[in-house]
Amino acid sequence: MVAPITPSDLSCALASLRERPPLVQCLTNIVVAQWTANVLLATGAAPAMVDNPREAGSFAGIAGGVLVNLGTPYEETASAMLLAATAAREAGTPWVLDPVAAGGLGWRTQLAHQLVADGGPTILRGNASEVLAVAAAGAGGSGVDSVDSPESAAEAAAGFAGTHGTVVAVSGPVDHLTDGERLVRIGNGHPWMTQVTGVGCALGALMAAFAAVVPDPLVAASAATAMLTVAADEAARRSGGPVSFAVALIDELAALTPDALGERVTLT
Amino acid sequence: MVAPITPSDLSCALASLRERPPLVQCLTNIVVAQWTANVLLATGAAPAMVDNPREAGSFAGIAGGVLVNLGTPYEETASAMLLAATAAREAGTPWVLDPVAAGGLGWRTQLAHQLVADGGPTILRGNASEVLAVAAAGAGGSGVDSVDSPESAAEAAAGFAGTHGTVVAVSGPVDHLTDGERLVRIGNGHPWMTQVTGVGCALGALMAAFAAVVPDPLVAASAATAMLTVAADEAARRSGGPVSFAVALIDELAALTPDALGERVTLT
Amino acid sequence: MVAPITPSDLSCALASLRERPPLVQCLTNIVVAQWTANVLLATGAAPAMVDNPREAGSFAGIAGGVLVNLGTPYEETASAMLLAATAAREAGTPWVLDPVAAGGLGWRTQLAHQLVADGGPTILRGNASEVLAVAAAGAGGSGVDSVDSPESAAEAAAGFAGTHGTVVAVSGPVDHLTDGERLVRIGNGHPWMTQVTGVGCALGALMAAFAAVVPDPLVAASAATAMLTVAADEAARRSGGPVSFAVALIDELAALTPDALGERVTLT
Repeated sequence: MVAPITPSDLSCALASLRERPPLVQCLTNIVVAQWTANVLLATGAAPAMVDNPREAGSFAGIAGGVLVNLGTPYEETASAMLLAATAAREAGTPWVLDPVAAGGLGWRTQLAHQLVADGGPTILRGNASEVLAVAAAGAGGSGVDSVDSPESAAEAAAGFAGTHGTVVAVSGPVDHLTDGERLVRIGNGHPWMTQVTGVGCALGALMAAFAAVVPDPLVAASAATAMLTVAADEAARRSGGPVSFAVALIDELAALTPDALGERVTLT
Repeated sequence: MVAPITPSDLSCALASLRERPPLVQCLTNIVVAQWTANVLLATGAAPAMVDNPREAGSFAGIAGGVLVNLGTPYEETASAMLLAATAAREAGTPWVLDPVAAGGLGWRTQLAHQLVADGGPTILRGNASEVLAVAAAGAGGSGVDSVDSPESAAEAAAGFAGTHGTVVAVSGPVDHLTDGERLVRIGNGHPWMTQVTGVGCALGALMAAFAAVVPDPLVAASAATAMLTVAADEAARRSGGPVSFAVALIDELAALTPDALGERVTLT
Repeated sequence: MVAPITPSDLSCALASLRERPPLVQCLTNIVVAQWTANVLLATGAAPAMVDNPREAGSFAGIAGGVLVNLGTPYEETASAMLLAATAAREAGTPWVLDPVAAGGLGWRTQLAHQLVADGGPTILRGNASEVLAVAAAGAGGSGVDSVDSPESAAEAAAGFAGTHGTVVAVSGPVDHLTDGERLVRIGNGHPWMTQVTGVGCALGALMAAFAAVVPDPLVAASAATAMLTVAADEAARRSGGPVSFAVALIDELAALTPDALGERVTLT
């Protein structure tokens, strides 16, 4: 299959983000909040962790993009997520749903379904088990690790994307992204990405950042994936373990230029 | 203007902190909690993140200093903040208000005003937009980044300081600190301080630490600012990006001596 | 005293963990959540931060081990902790209680006592002041730092262990671990472990990980302690300060082999 999205599209997306730094509202989990903010800052976006019900809805109206991540939901943040998703839909703000551990845990699976119903996410991002849990009747995950392959989730992802008008991005050794018609596969990345917490969560935040500056959500999701995985390729070359890798990864995000992104991405 | 506070005052403040490590209660946000604790530990203080309503008030009576940071307020932590501020005032414990994103967001702006009314902070710390939102009718911020310059906030800061008996510290390329009569301007620091999350939040915590061991709050706020920005100067020299800088910054805080602090600070 | 547990037992424990990566449920604090997850991942376990009342109980039934850490309790997470502890006991899931700052703060001290009464922890881990606060009438701590020595807590620890069938692990320059009959003392480690936040908290998580794969809780607690302190010895050799040490520590955890663990541990 000829890649429907070109490296040049991804370069342009990063150039746009650097020219007009988007304000990205993150409703995310307590584990990765700092890491996510630093990934956004290094890439060139402005993070704002506004995740209480009194402020989340109105802020989603003025943010450039919104991330809703279900890693550690509580009553109050879950309410804020529903308010932000609805407000984002009404304001036309692009938003990303990252249903961490959906399928394996009951409450957050219901919450993910309600967020889809109320808010209609612009992008759904997860590993294969999480995407299957939201998009179809999946076997469910065990904690936050996927027991399904991206390939096995491809059909359900394409079906969900076509039905809901949502771009679906499935993480794995090769990332699969689709809007129901086009399929993008990105082959960059390193196993250390799975041995440090929050890399997938940060990817969701980057998708919200790119969606704020790029009209095509499939380009936005692809640019975010390319950004993080190309930076990971570079970071792994000069790291001695998972956490020195994580430090180097953020430094590489800050150093990565639009041209280098286009040159190094592997669209398969 | 002759600097009303000398490098020697700042050296002595650090020597005091190292001799009598203060217990610093932090009611802060989920993004920077770990980073803040590590900044305090490296400097020589003992952090205690006591931010629930059942314990926050009584703990503020025994802590050496208290930080209240509005980065991610929730119903429960907001209640704890009000209890801690009131208890700190009653016990004579110095406390610092960091009104993150005040002006841009309604609930936390009201909360900041209530904290000022109930607790009378020893030090108010923020960027120019945040300080204007608390101290006067400002244009408000966009998320957590300032749209005003420290210079533009100087008059409002001095007015608020004089009226409330509160030291006001405004962050920027040159930090401005005032108690309404004296003005301290500190020129150290590096742009990377704005490209990693939580540097300003950690500065607030350091102010609470120094206020616990130094009787003059303007000296305390200045010593904290000098500490963080002088360490940043050193850290930037041996870093390749924003997060390796953040790691080096904490190492430099641990290595910085009172003498070196006095020698390297730039009071303008 | 002849060491009742051998280096070979600890090597085998690590080999078991690497062969069968356990799923470790963490109900922990906002300060150390990311750090704890990365320590578990580097060691070879799969972290799952499930700490809301709607999911915590059922998840404790399927997790391999559970950590309950009282660093920043809130109403909702405290409820989740009680549900998880009870469910773990009923399901036979080993669980670890880390009563951060118990003794110094009233609510969490009561919560610790209730967790002991309801859940009967497999392992109780803390500094001497915290263990004394749970196990006996202690002088109490100041914040999160211990004012008692591990040696001073030894008698109370052994008594509590014998009465409750709980392994008690007391951190300090020499770590003391006991099940009421056997005593293990581990002499590895570096002072930087106390100058970066969350090392003790991560130790509790590692104990839950090892308890999931090793039937003898005293071996599990000892293996976790050996793992972290041996890695710290290595990390300190190539670090310039507390936070570069923290980064190196996690890299060393990932690199540490079962054989090296057995060779380098100092059982005294």
